[in-house]
Amino acid sequence: MFHHVVLMEFTADADQRFLEQVEAYSERIRRSAPNLLRYVFGRNVASRSGGFPYGIVSSFVSAADHDAYQTSATHQEMKAYLTPYIARIVVCEMDEDQS
Amino acid sequence: MFHHVVLMEFTADADQRFLEQVEAYSERIRRSAPNLLRYVFGRNVASRSGGFPYGIVSSFVSAADHDAYQTSATHQEMKAYLTPYIARIVVCEMDEDQS
Repeated sequence: MFHHVVLMEFTADADQRFLEQVEAYSERIRRSAPNLLRYVFGRNVASRSGGFPYGIVSSFVSAADHDAYQTSATHQEMKAYLTPYIARIVVCEMDEDQS
Repeated sequence: MFHHVVLMEFTADADQRFLEQVEAYSERIRRSAPNLLRYVFGRNVASRSGGFPYGIVSSFVSAADHDAYQTSATHQEMKAYLTPYIARIVVCEMDEDQS
């Protein structure tokens, strides 16, 4: 299993409509990505959030499935939409098959 | 479901023996924490890791189960062992029941 977790701080331009659009992209990914086990976008409620108020928590059957997601048309479109709104980002990826 | 993800950078004192000890604590938590769905400690293999080379990816049935884990004797012991080795830490927590 491969885990892909993204912590994000958005720019001041990120309003409610933006958040709804990210959720809509997340739903499209949940419906289309092969061997996707979980894909959740939401508020980072941790007290030690490091100033990253939003996150994506996702899991795939394998690293290859995560690679396919990264290059998929839906994710590329989501990334193009998101990028201008991302002030800071940090990522945690863990491959259970390699650890 | 409640997701608790920790990104960590350890101090120079963190050697192989230390990493094995953290894994041993993780195994104790996997065997004892009620309603724990996943608890993985390992290398953060993300290219955008933000200088956090290690992580813990965990999921609980509910936020209350995560709260119980945080205050459990095993986690308190693990935390006391880990804390002196933690140079930087950032946490992502997401409560699917609240989003």
